Amino acid sequence: MIRLDHIGFVTKDIESLAGVFKALGISDITEPIENPSQKVAASFANVGDKEDVYVEILEPTRDDSPISKFLEKQGGGLHHLCFEVDNIEKTSEDLVAKGFKMIVPPEDCGAYDKNLKRDCSGITKIAFFIAADRFLVELIEKGR
Amino acid sequence: MIRLDHIGFVTKDIESLAGVFKALGISDITEPIENPSQKVAASFANVGDKEDVYVEILEPTRDDSPISKFLEKQGGGLHHLCFEVDNIEKTSEDLVAKGFKMIVPPEDCGAYDKNLKRDCSGITKIAFFIAADRFLVELIEKGR
Repeated sequence: MIRLDHIGFVTKDIESLAGVFKALGISDITEPIENPSQKVAASFANVGDKEDVYVEILEPTRDDSPISKFLEKQGGGLHHLCFEVDNIEKTSEDLVAKGFKMIVPPEDCGAYDKNLKRDCSGITKIAFFIAADRFLVELIEKGR
Repeated sequence: MIRLDHIGFVTKDIESLAGVFKALGISDITEPIENPSQKVAASFANVGDKEDVYVEILEPTRDDSPISKFLEKQGGGLHHLCFEVDNIEKTSEDLVAKGFKMIVPPEDCGAYDKNLKRDCSGITKIAFFIAADRFLVELIEKGR
């Protein structure tokens, strides 16, 4: 299984971009929560219909955040696509074998579960890769 | 109703980016078709699960294509989000009233129907807007 889970959008002001989604008529938006490991705060706007698909609105919480340079250089904008998989370790190995560059190996992301109020005992895991065209791809294996 | 229909990704080589999606295990990808009005060719990769959500892989077909400058300046990448609405004329008026800048008023996009082999007598319409953070938003009303 692989499916789009969310689109990452980097901004200097989560509230301002959340306002854009509200103006579009999208009102299911979570409160910002920090992921200390990636030094970002994130809100999730649910843009799906029959299934949950989110825009993850991201703001750096520190100057040395992985998204600070992108914000500085490009002024923010669409940043990455995140795909849900069943087994992040296996898919990560597979992508590396296919030439994707792994920049963040699988790590826990409890902020995702907390933000989306997921009722799970296991912790969600994420990993980041660069593909062709400097395309930033995130994988997510949701905690169960 | 408003829901994410697709994410636009600009590249100089549709085939190369289609290869990235195939490597991810996403094989439902349409053949490139040209939209002469926007001077682009597009393939659609279906990244949804229970509903159709696409990555639209875009390549300019002419140097004066609206996406040529983006490709030149940023080397391509994630470009816009497209939301499906019931009534594109009404939603467009509403967004302009809310401060969105309309850059392409509603126009026919038969290429979308042709590309996705949609069985419809009406023609799909699209429009483009710029919101806060230079966020490029497309609306789509699907032909019925």
